[in-house]
Amino acid sequence: MKIIDLKETILQDNDADAALLRAELGAQGICLMNLMSAPGSGKTSTLLALDKYFRGRMNWGVMEADIDSDVDALTLEAAGVPSIQLHTGGMCHLDADMTRQGVNAFRAEHPDYDGGFMVLENIGNLVCPAEYDTGASINLTILSVPEGDDKPAKYPLMYRVSDVLVINKIDALPVFDFDKVRMEGYAKTLNPDIRIFYISAKTGEGVEALAEYLMARATTVLGKEGF
Amino acid sequence: MKIIDLKETILQDNDADAALLRAELGAQGICLMNLMSAPGSGKTSTLLALDKYFRGRMNWGVMEADIDSDVDALTLEAAGVPSIQLHTGGMCHLDADMTRQGVNAFRAEHPDYDGGFMVLENIGNLVCPAEYDTGASINLTILSVPEGDDKPAKYPLMYRVSDVLVINKIDALPVFDFDKVRMEGYAKTLNPDIRIFYISAKTGEGVEALAEYLMARATTVLGKEGF
Repeated sequence: MKIIDLKETILQDNDADAALLRAELGAQGICLMNLMSAPGSGKTSTLLALDKYFRGRMNWGVMEADIDSDVDALTLEAAGVPSIQLHTGGMCHLDADMTRQGVNAFRAEHPDYDGGFMVLENIGNLVCPAEYDTGASINLTILSVPEGDDKPAKYPLMYRVSDVLVINKIDALPVFDFDKVRMEGYAKTLNPDIRIFYISAKTGEGVEALAEYLMARATTVLGKEGF
Repeated sequence: MKIIDLKETILQDNDADAALLRAELGAQGICLMNLMSAPGSGKTSTLLALDKYFRGRMNWGVMEADIDSDVDALTLEAAGVPSIQLHTGGMCHLDADMTRQGVNAFRAEHPDYDGGFMVLENIGNLVCPAEYDTGASINLTILSVPEGDDKPAKYPLMYRVSDVLVINKIDALPVFDFDKVRMEGYAKTLNPDIRIFYISAKTGEGVEALAEYLMARATTVLGKEGF
């Protein structure tokens, strides 16, 4: 597994650079999704669960960003998902230029990838990644049931910038005190248009609906079908 | 519930300021513990579980730091634990001067508190809080079973700077694939001296041993018993 050490960028205007990257990705036929959550919410296992539906229907790849280790990228590689490991050198988030470095490294590593869907698995952190536009067209955050239904109230920016909210580990609902109505109340107060999906990456429940939604979103972003 | 808005400090040398704060707290007879974890690991519920053992045996209080909301401080207040809510204005961590602002606000709010144990419940984040010495004498991090046994490998600095590691939600061990040996291997490679406790804040299992250990640590730090 090749590990790419990202260079820290101190740009004056990350928002402008993110808009530029979005245009560059559009020209390359790439629909980028920024996948965010707290540590341990199940980002990688959700991607593995989605792969069952994506495979054969959509060309896709994953950039795994971590402070350290290559556990997640090795897991995806073993499952046959084109992926690359990015190390942030201790940084708590990725900005647009770090994302661009990742995309370029991914394309160099996977020359057969000719565009389609691409996922940036951001650092597990509900605070800092929410503050930086990565150039993605879809921002998806995962909240797992054991973390509790009050997370939107505590980390509001994450729920404001995300257009998709996935509640993972619903197989554990009987074991934890998680009030869906309370959680949705917090989330929709912050972001009335947020799309909410309930899944268990472990059992597969709810994953198909999420996969179909993401494939439709990618089709819309890219303006074409069957990529 | 009074909410204190912390002022951001851009100090050249947080380490020196943290050492100064540690001395100031020693002079005030306060043993400060910095409580860190990912969002939803059970910081507040662990404190509530510890209160059953602390109460009547140790004078203590809690500074709840959050980006937003006062959910946790209200929970502690309802349980009769002297507490105060700190808001970081979006900041992902507390440094030593922000902690000092919190201690001063706590003492103004609770004039009957004449020293003892004090907990800073840091922002739920495994990355940034690990980078800032808050002036605490004890750094404790919680990892909950649903987050997975690989977290020390992914967020190594948190496990290097923590002297106590609490594995919470052990009542959920039958539901999740969590390998204690693997987790301890990662953690002890990073920090051979880290003290590990297994608890369930929900059922109370293991909490007494943790409470006794923390009371003994506070006694050592303060150089006196029965505070």
